[in-house]
Amino acid sequence: MSNNQNPCSRFVWPLRVYYEDTDAGGVVYYANYLRFCERARTEWLRSLGVSQRQLLADAGLAFVVRRVEADYLLGAELDDELEVVSTIAKLGAASLTFHQTVQRGDAIVFAAAVSVACVDMARRRATRIPDALRSLLESVA
Amino acid sequence: MSNNQNPCSRFVWPLRVYYEDTDAGGVVYYANYLRFCERARTEWLRSLGVSQRQLLADAGLAFVVRRVEADYLLGAELDDELEVVSTIAKLGAASLTFHQTVQRGDAIVFAAAVSVACVDMARRRATRIPDALRSLLESVA
Amino acid sequence: MSNNQNPCSRFVWPLRVYYEDTDAGGVVYYANYLRFCERARTEWLRSLGVSQRQLLADAGLAFVVRRVEADYLLGAELDDELEVVSTIAKLGAASLTFHQTVQRGDAIVFAAAVSVACVDMARRRATRIPDALRSLLESVA
Amino acid sequence: MSNNQNPCSRFVWPLRVYYEDTDAGGVVYYANYLRFCERARTEWLRSLGVSQRQLLADAGLAFVVRRVEADYLLGAELDDELEVVSTIAKLGAASLTFHQTVQRGDAIVFAAAVSVACVDMARRRATRIPDALRSLLESVA
Repeated sequence: MSNNQNPCSRFVWPLRVYYEDTDAGGVVYYANYLRFCERARTEWLRSLGVSQRQLLADAGLAFVVRRVEADYLLGAELDDELEVVSTIAKLGAASLTFHQTVQRGDAIVFAAAVSVACVDMARRRATRIPDALRSLLESVA
Repeated sequence: MSNNQNPCSRFVWPLRVYYEDTDAGGVVYYANYLRFCERARTEWLRSLGVSQRQLLADAGLAFVVRRVEADYLLGAELDDELEVVSTIAKLGAASLTFHQTVQRGDAIVFAAAVSVACVDMARRRATRIPDALRSLLESVA
Repeated sequence: MSNNQNPCSRFVWPLRVYYEDTDAGGVVYYANYLRFCERARTEWLRSLGVSQRQLLADAGLAFVVRRVEADYLLGAELDDELEVVSTIAKLGAASLTFHQTVQRGDAIVFAAAVSVACVDMARRRATRIPDALRSLLESVA
Repeated sequence: MSNNQNPCSRFVWPLRVYYEDTDAGGVVYYANYLRFCERARTEWLRSLGVSQRQLLADAGLAFVVRRVEADYLLGAELDDELEVVSTIAKLGAASLTFHQTVQRGDAIVFAAAVSVACVDMARRRATRIPDALRSLLESVA
């Protein structure tokens, strides 16, 4: 089910640090790494042909963050070119866990495990990931 | 219709500057003054007994920002105690304009005119401010 | 060293949810709970007489987040009145761990363990918490 | 001094709308258009070979926003592909004014005039734009 030789099992999303991302300490504000990680998850899904907006409109489903474990290793600074490197660490029936690092060149600035649940938004309850989407996720997990 | 002697015609909302509000320049990031101003508008309405959440749920109405004219005069810093001072500069049939300043003691850090329209969210169209709400706004304009 | 009977060993900071805090899912954006938690840590220190701005200016020290473990349990919504409830879970020589929950009434919306290190910002290295500050922290840990 | 035939006199910066940019109204939060505009100004300067980080380190200079006039015309939504289109409307001795629109296809979502001053950060005072930088800006104004 896991296929780490597949190039698609690792998704790299580049980004820049702007003033809006930093704080008076001169580095990226700690909450903003979670934004960077969400952009990367969204773009990964998009690259697989999944639109979260459509998923919500058509099936009433959304991926909702349930748990984050994050380590802050270095401070990224204004103008830094960063990459968010994402893999799927675990794929369950109604949830999945991403492993995501924010890197500056070879240095790991931030590392996180982010668990998201597939939620039926009308009932506000976790639900099985639909089969078609599940197959897509398995192909990159 | 206007009653500037009324103490309620001027609403003061205090706030603190946290790391989240600042940027690597050591001062409050320029977009964040608009957040401060919206908090103050919201709290003013709340102090008049108007819940924007209820206004949307019951009447399908929301106040939507249409225009901002803003002058940045000083840079507010981490830990600063600020006050947002708001008045209603103009009250129209379907819109109103707030004059808002962000102050540190007697010094004006930021000054803006913010025009908001009353919008029927289902039709996405400007609509008359309901009479009861209008009377409330006239009492403080 | 721990004194859970002491009322100060638990710090409660109230806040409101504004539009700026929410996202198109209709709830507070997941990164923003980390902002709420930082406001509470800052206000706790302030209530103990510690200014982070002064700590940086006088001693060149700052508390830097090293690790966050966060569980998202419920979704807070626009206009919600929340409380951040903070305790010190662990006090080390050069670091400390806060346990923080964001609550709406009795319901726990968000729960996190946030570890911060005392950092000598010039050398960008973790350093011992100064004795006077340490005594203060011990009094509430 | 103005040369609208020059392709470089108009800078286009693409971006996506993520959850972090939206609010509970289902559209981009009004302050966040100012972030989009700053990203575009920064990237324009970068495309001309100007690093703001270096400008600050080498010459102690920064461009600081002094005034914003902004019109909110439409609401951008989650997943929208937007473009920030920037031109220089006015180039003074110590300041310049950008005209910036945020567009979705041919539709203008947001339009602003943003005036920035060249500031000597040590003296916190407006100062002449250095000649080399001025020549660059004239070439695209």
